Amino acid sequence: MINWLFIFVPLTVVLEHVVPMAYTWIFFMACLAILPIAHLIVESTEHISVHTGDAIGGLLNATFGNAPELIIAMVALRAGLFDMVRASLIGAILANLLLALGIAFLLGGLRYHNQEYNPAASRLYSTMMLTAVISLVVPSTFNRFFAAQAAPRQEELLNLGMALVLLIAYALYLLFMLKTHPEFFSSAVASAEDEEHHSGAAQWSIPKAAGCLVLASVLAAWMSEILVGAAEGTGKALGMSQTFIGIVFLAIVGGAAESGSAIAMARKNKMDLTVGIALGSCIQIALFVAPVLVLASYVVAPHPLELSFGRAELGAMFLAILIGAMVSGDGRSNWYKGVQLTTVYVILAFLFYFMPETAPQ
Amino acid sequence: MINWLFIFVPLTVVLEHVVPMAYTWIFFMACLAILPIAHLIVESTEHISVHTGDAIGGLLNATFGNAPELIIAMVALRAGLFDMVRASLIGAILANLLLALGIAFLLGGLRYHNQEYNPAASRLYSTMMLTAVISLVVPSTFNRFFAAQAAPRQEELLNLGMALVLLIAYALYLLFMLKTHPEFFSSAVASAEDEEHHSGAAQWSIPKAAGCLVLASVLAAWMSEILVGAAEGTGKALGMSQTFIGIVFLAIVGGAAESGSAIAMARKNKMDLTVGIALGSCIQIALFVAPVLVLASYVVAPHPLELSFGRAELGAMFLAILIGAMVSGDGRSNWYKGVQLTTVYVILAFLFYFMPETAPQ
Amino acid sequence: MINWLFIFVPLTVVLEHVVPMAYTWIFFMACLAILPIAHLIVESTEHISVHTGDAIGGLLNATFGNAPELIIAMVALRAGLFDMVRASLIGAILANLLLALGIAFLLGGLRYHNQEYNPAASRLYSTMMLTAVISLVVPSTFNRFFAAQAAPRQEELLNLGMALVLLIAYALYLLFMLKTHPEFFSSAVASAEDEEHHSGAAQWSIPKAAGCLVLASVLAAWMSEILVGAAEGTGKALGMSQTFIGIVFLAIVGGAAESGSAIAMARKNKMDLTVGIALGSCIQIALFVAPVLVLASYVVAPHPLELSFGRAELGAMFLAILIGAMVSGDGRSNWYKGVQLTTVYVILAFLFYFMPETAPQ
Repeated sequence: MINWLFIFVPLTVVLEHVVPMAYTWIFFMACLAILPIAHLIVESTEHISVHTGDAIGGLLNATFGNAPELIIAMVALRAGLFDMVRASLIGAILANLLLALGIAFLLGGLRYHNQEYNPAASRLYSTMMLTAVISLVVPSTFNRFFAAQAAPRQEELLNLGMALVLLIAYALYLLFMLKTHPEFFSSAVASAEDEEHHSGAAQWSIPKAAGCLVLASVLAAWMSEILVGAAEGTGKALGMSQTFIGIVFLAIVGGAAESGSAIAMARKNKMDLTVGIALGSCIQIALFVAPVLVLASYVVAPHPLELSFGRAELGAMFLAILIGAMVSGDGRSNWYKGVQLTTVYVILAFLFYFMPETAPQ
Repeated sequence: MINWLFIFVPLTVVLEHVVPMAYTWIFFMACLAILPIAHLIVESTEHISVHTGDAIGGLLNATFGNAPELIIAMVALRAGLFDMVRASLIGAILANLLLALGIAFLLGGLRYHNQEYNPAASRLYSTMMLTAVISLVVPSTFNRFFAAQAAPRQEELLNLGMALVLLIAYALYLLFMLKTHPEFFSSAVASAEDEEHHSGAAQWSIPKAAGCLVLASVLAAWMSEILVGAAEGTGKALGMSQTFIGIVFLAIVGGAAESGSAIAMARKNKMDLTVGIALGSCIQIALFVAPVLVLASYVVAPHPLELSFGRAELGAMFLAILIGAMVSGDGRSNWYKGVQLTTVYVILAFLFYFMPETAPQ
Repeated sequence: MINWLFIFVPLTVVLEHVVPMAYTWIFFMACLAILPIAHLIVESTEHISVHTGDAIGGLLNATFGNAPELIIAMVALRAGLFDMVRASLIGAILANLLLALGIAFLLGGLRYHNQEYNPAASRLYSTMMLTAVISLVVPSTFNRFFAAQAAPRQEELLNLGMALVLLIAYALYLLFMLKTHPEFFSSAVASAEDEEHHSGAAQWSIPKAAGCLVLASVLAAWMSEILVGAAEGTGKALGMSQTFIGIVFLAIVGGAAESGSAIAMARKNKMDLTVGIALGSCIQIALFVAPVLVLASYVVAPHPLELSFGRAELGAMFLAILIGAMVSGDGRSNWYKGVQLTTVYVILAFLFYFMPETAPQ
């Protein structure tokens, strides 16, 4: 039923050719157009992973799960919109950790009095997130305080070193999750398979699934191109900063497919899946998408991307993780926990909306 | 037995008229005079709430529980002592979270080897507090870093927006606590009723309770007027800053009634009540008293109150919440936990004592 | 088997006399020479404590457990290398909390699928650590922000006051651990005794143990003298700052004996002991070694030591405690938790390596 949104793909293209100056319209139509494409990417990955067996399937899901975010960020990277790229990373983490999980807890809690899930897994996700934030803090601190005295070479080394550390941590995390301790995440995986197998739809063949994946990725890149192209103009028209557009709009659009399924699972009382999707997605962004963008920037971007976030961004992420860990640490949820997470998201969005673009961070 | 302190009400008034320059004496006598008044406010609210049924009674208790703090802050607000108002808010949170809970754990632990309470409720309180701190951090950050570049209109909007978000979160919290999930807090509520009903004293009639409430509130306002009037002079005489007086003296005086009952309950091994009173009080201050003061400042104060706290204040509150959450997160207490909380309070009081008034925060 | 490293004691002395300029060689040989000496100090303390009964034995262990760190820091203090002393304190905490515990979790987890320990004890350690960090933050903040406006006398008072608060908290912690709530730590203590009694070796007599302790302490002081003397030259030769040498090398060397036994216990699946040694050691450093150094500085150092840490040091310690608390809070460990802790250590070591010495902190 999300598929009727595909109508926005041609509409966006037509609009962009006919009235190229209608930035705001183009931007929001491209946002709508990306939603079904992102959904298609996620869906075809899942169909492929059914054919490949558990381990490789898990790997595929973990790697392509954030393909929409990655594609949008890559396009913005090529266009040299570094602030927007950094903002979309932070925004994706906030959107998954606070908004998606918050709405899922809220809507799930309105239907079920109390909901339960595995606290050990959510604790693991929290520590992973904190590790990731620490490794993002280090280059940012360095850039802000010490960059002037250090040779540029050192700065780059630190940046690359951190990207590598994150990727190694991610590889070991996959090993832990898929090979040595799958029982840690088992109820989530089991029900996910379940969901897939009995969701009524027939399995796609590999050629069909692969074809859809390639097609959807090309479409996503195309729409992202239009989206990013219109972003700056939209920001000016609506009085919003590049950072705000990246943190709120790009992040929500990029993660909409996954957020949608996290919320849907909560309505079915499958909280392990909800938590797994929302927090797992955060981890992929911090440990996989971010370092991949750093490495990719050496190839596609005008100059290397540095993971140097401002004070407000790091603070927001740190507080989000802290409250996420506190709220989800006991393996139980109710509607009010959803309100808490959503409230924090709204408060942080407020901050980024009012923050002047030229602020000293 | 606290009632003999009422003698300080006339004494303070007399002293203020006879020796209006004896600031320090007036200040400390007014402190003593407010203690029984605050106790009377809390007591009459409870007597009224017995007549009104559970839901409205809970609402009344939650709203009037911090009436003494609110009255003192309101008087200081009208006098334009904004630093003192802000300091008394922070101080009230520190006093409840660290000092009252710490002394309760310590004295309770000296009598009972281990004491237990419901960890789910204390976890909820912690996340509420963190939400509140986040919403206090945002306007403060904004004021400190971005205010120069932003239009004053934006600053005010942000300030009002945050006050509104806090009040909505508080309303939903009352809904959660009183309507949808009362079992979460049940042992606390049950024993509280218990306590009330069997405490030997006869119930007051509504007219008597309401009369006492009005009388006590008027007295409280009068004494607060004297207290606040003498505060500045006392600070100068003792070499203490406005901030220190607000954070330590006003906060302890304003919360003394509730702190006293939290400690008394711990001595009776009713830890759920202890935790409910001490942490519940913190939440009311952060989510109810603070935004109400912001809104009230548009009416009673010379210019609007902004919730812009300094670095030291925010840091102190953040660390207090973190250690409070860690210490109370497992639902068990012993005397040493009390020592830990009290130690942190002493350390923070040290900091505020030595902090120069003109410090760049 | 560690005893063959004693060969490095004479080697270091000879080298220092023959080629006094070979700083780097001398430094690393002195590092190796200290390892068996530190081990001997720990061992003889344990043998003495067998003769003295539980309470005094526990006290002895708790006091002499960090003797190597204390001796090295004392020597550096006398030489006026204040940055190195402060760095070695931070480094010792990081090394115990992240590196020793991380490697223990990792190696233990490679042998055992899941390992369990008492979460209540690890929670207590975490709150102790946070208390300690708060009391280190306060004088540091004061020095950084307010020192200019405050009288030097005030600064000194605050510094001494904090040292006293820490020592009192430590004394009460010993009382709690050894007298009132030993069952909290019981499994750890029981197995430790066990380990000692049945480790095959005969008990040493008091004279032998005391003699060894004195001899080892003298040797440790001698080697530390050489170590510290060569540290500056080594730093220049290898392009490392005083801070980095203190945080990484001195800290690892000083804590090697204990780290070694923490790891060995994990390999034997005695996780309570592992956690007790690693986290207990952190607490001793923060609550005992640090304030003792402050007090000692009035006697042995050119001017009083102030516990004023830079932004990066405090941030590193704060994040380390937060992640340590999150990781160890549920009483279960596996290899991936070890990877997480070790990763954070590596990231922080990166930061301190690249941090310019003259940085504004």
